[in-house]
Amino acid sequence: MRTEHDYVHGYSGRERQRLADQADTLAELLHSDTFYPSGVVLEVGCGVGAQTVSLARRSPEATIVAMDIAADSLAVAQERIRSAGFRNVVFQQGDVYAMPFAPDAFDHVFACFVLEHLSRPRDALAHLRHVLKPGGTITVIEGDHGSTYFHPESPYARKAIQCLIELQARAGGDSLIGRTLYPLVLESGFQHVTVSPRMVYVDASRPRLVEGFTTNTFTAMVEGVRERALAAGLIDEDTWERGIRDLHRTAESDGTFCYTFFKAVATT
Amino acid sequence: MRTEHDYVHGYSGRERQRLADQADTLAELLHSDTFYPSGVVLEVGCGVGAQTVSLARRSPEATIVAMDIAADSLAVAQERIRSAGFRNVVFQQGDVYAMPFAPDAFDHVFACFVLEHLSRPRDALAHLRHVLKPGGTITVIEGDHGSTYFHPESPYARKAIQCLIELQARAGGDSLIGRTLYPLVLESGFQHVTVSPRMVYVDASRPRLVEGFTTNTFTAMVEGVRERALAAGLIDEDTWERGIRDLHRTAESDGTFCYTFFKAVATT
Repeated sequence: MRTEHDYVHGYSGRERQRLADQADTLAELLHSDTFYPSGVVLEVGCGVGAQTVSLARRSPEATIVAMDIAADSLAVAQERIRSAGFRNVVFQQGDVYAMPFAPDAFDHVFACFVLEHLSRPRDALAHLRHVLKPGGTITVIEGDHGSTYFHPESPYARKAIQCLIELQARAGGDSLIGRTLYPLVLESGFQHVTVSPRMVYVDASRPRLVEGFTTNTFTAMVEGVRERALAAGLIDEDTWERGIRDLHRTAESDGTFCYTFFKAVATT
Repeated sequence: MRTEHDYVHGYSGRERQRLADQADTLAELLHSDTFYPSGVVLEVGCGVGAQTVSLARRSPEATIVAMDIAADSLAVAQERIRSAGFRNVVFQQGDVYAMPFAPDAFDHVFACFVLEHLSRPRDALAHLRHVLKPGGTITVIEGDHGSTYFHPESPYARKAIQCLIELQARAGGDSLIGRTLYPLVLESGFQHVTVSPRMVYVDASRPRLVEGFTTNTFTAMVEGVRERALAAGLIDEDTWERGIRDLHRTAESDGTFCYTFFKAVATT
């Protein structure tokens, strides 16, 4: 079972800001085609509510039940939703493997950046199918760190990224999960599985993405595991520093950066 | 200077079929937003005319000058265009570094899967800018073999792909060029450079792409360098066979495959 401590990105204030930046930059790309005209939607692993805001805004007539295992995160999410003025979200602490809901309780399930942190994503999906009404839908959004490439290329930057992938794997997760969503959702018993990639391409003609994605989302995410990567002996300090410098280098005027998220939609 | 012999994929009949399959499958993704209402368009490196057919069909009122360095390829292209019934294409043998055209001869330049094979892509782009009228546009489409990832992952498949990348580099090319198009085109003196990625995502719900792209385009392209990779000692036969098997494995019902092309449009 995942504990709070296992969350690879940690729970610092800086991480909260990173998640907020990420949500703003990516909301359109990831969520623009998610709209629930009515019904009850379970958001699994809402965390600090970074995606909950998008959900609540885009589906004002739906009721969103935002669940997370971490009470601290839920409190932050609750405050964020309250201060943004949304009234269609309720919060519930819960574990995806033992949810406090009746079967068939929900019309829809929404899970964004959650399965990547779970050691048994198939089991989690099976549990989620169980709380969905017949004909209900599930929407799953995940990244894939192996989809990352950039210019100029750098073996040091690749090694730094590999630390994040390795630490997430050691915590029981899978940061390469995006490309596996199709078989994963299908093999969990869902039907009509449709996966669409959402690629982020960044060059200097898109300054908002340079800052919002390359620097403040992806590079900041890698930088966030510095201490753990060094402590685990996954990399030496010089290689790490050079790798981070080379990631920042891709944000210069002649650099480019690519990353792809995957969105799966399916029915029970 | 590039010679015919240097073309990494060779000139066999099977390669011609591969290029035709590729063009059919990808035409919509790569070319749907390329339309020239009038004027004279230079297609550089038309090869056997795989993309020329799309160009001619989408821009019936434009005149297309299809150029290639290889006379044999031009003959195939010419026959293909004739049998398809297009009357808006003329053919010209020529070298991009020493083109038989006056300055300002063209309204538009179109180059698809060409720069990746050139040792001096910046020089080539500068020459192309020279034959464009002021205010003319250039459209460049390239792949990026480093954008390839798949499920299930396989170090053997990666080694086989790396052979293709290495052979293309030894022939003076760069199969990772897609991600560099933005700085490349900008530094060659063009303006208003806009790059858009065109990602191909394949899973079993898209059977036409499984066959048309994963198997008949990408895996076939890697398979095409088998003899040269083995002869160059880049890989041993067992690893090669396993790698190709693992690439085919990604075309099974629970496999996925990802590849990204890049399209740059700019003005003089």
